[in-house]
Amino acid sequence: MFSLEQGQQSISSRNLADFLGVNPWQIRKDFSYFGDFGTRGVGYNIEKLAKQIKKILKLDAIHKAALVGVGNLGSAVLAYPGFRIYGLNIAAAFDTDSKKIGRKIENITIEDVSNLRTLKKRKINLAIITVPRGAAQQTADALVNAGVKGILNFSPCYITVPKKVKVITIDIAMDLARLPYYIPAS
Amino acid sequence: MFSLEQGQQSISSRNLADFLGVNPWQIRKDFSYFGDFGTRGVGYNIEKLAKQIKKILKLDAIHKAALVGVGNLGSAVLAYPGFRIYGLNIAAAFDTDSKKIGRKIENITIEDVSNLRTLKKRKINLAIITVPRGAAQQTADALVNAGVKGILNFSPCYITVPKKVKVITIDIAMDLARLPYYIPAS
Repeated sequence: MFSLEQGQQSISSRNLADFLGVNPWQIRKDFSYFGDFGTRGVGYNIEKLAKQIKKILKLDAIHKAALVGVGNLGSAVLAYPGFRIYGLNIAAAFDTDSKKIGRKIENITIEDVSNLRTLKKRKINLAIITVPRGAAQQTADALVNAGVKGILNFSPCYITVPKKVKVITIDIAMDLARLPYYIPAS
Repeated sequence: MFSLEQGQQSISSRNLADFLGVNPWQIRKDFSYFGDFGTRGVGYNIEKLAKQIKKILKLDAIHKAALVGVGNLGSAVLAYPGFRIYGLNIAAAFDTDSKKIGRKIENITIEDVSNLRTLKKRKINLAIITVPRGAAQQTADALVNAGVKGILNFSPCYITVPKKVKVITIDIAMDLARLPYYIPAS
């Protein structure tokens, strides 16, 4: 298993390739497409490389996201560690349940969904949908009206949005369903 | 938007292609690789096609899965609808918290993790890990020891398993991080 040494400043395409399970020439070819990052015989400066990749993936700015639906799944997503390393910040959470509204979870005060219209003013243009299936489309509509440009949808259904809005749907059941394919019949 | 009519028995490669956003010839080429499913000018018999695809994807048998870690995320996964259409059955749930053990959630009685060793006897060879990051590797080890062949890992970390075991890791943060890439700078 590949691992970085404490204080290591550069990494070779060979090491990166081993870690990712691809060929070193593929690494070099892909990076060269975006410019000249490496030094022959030395490799890539790690800090500079990470910075470049974040820029390519548009992860060099902070992105604020809203979460709609603070049930079990929504609560789990709010508590999920690791958003920060991608520059993501879940900045607001919404629900329709008056018992939840005003409560704090992970330092975020749950707001009434009617507040969704404030998202644009708050410069929040990403959203996560964790509402029950029946409420997914109307939630998406409200988010689009509020100026949201990207939606991560955990509701097990397809939602329809204008073309300018990007939706990524996570189907947990389908992810699990991929596993049997790799398992030899017993 | 493509939709099936009530009672519709066949579907053309053109309709399937429109729905999936690919070319009709790609549909025909892909299906022909697995045999001769369709009828020229008529299309594919829907029932037969679905059956064939399920067989190809090894989803024509019931697969039993265990879930380890009944926190917010685990509870949400247990309550997630839609496993059944893939022939998946979450048949057991485990936790280390004595306050949870013995409680029922979605008709499944939560068991102590020490019961994981019974999985093989119960013919459960898929598992879902929804434990905190720090407990993920030891959970994976216990599952592998119990004969599990496929793991869906929701803990935000990589786990190491023998090569014969297939792991799919779901990184919610990374899924959200894909969105900014598609969003024009404002």
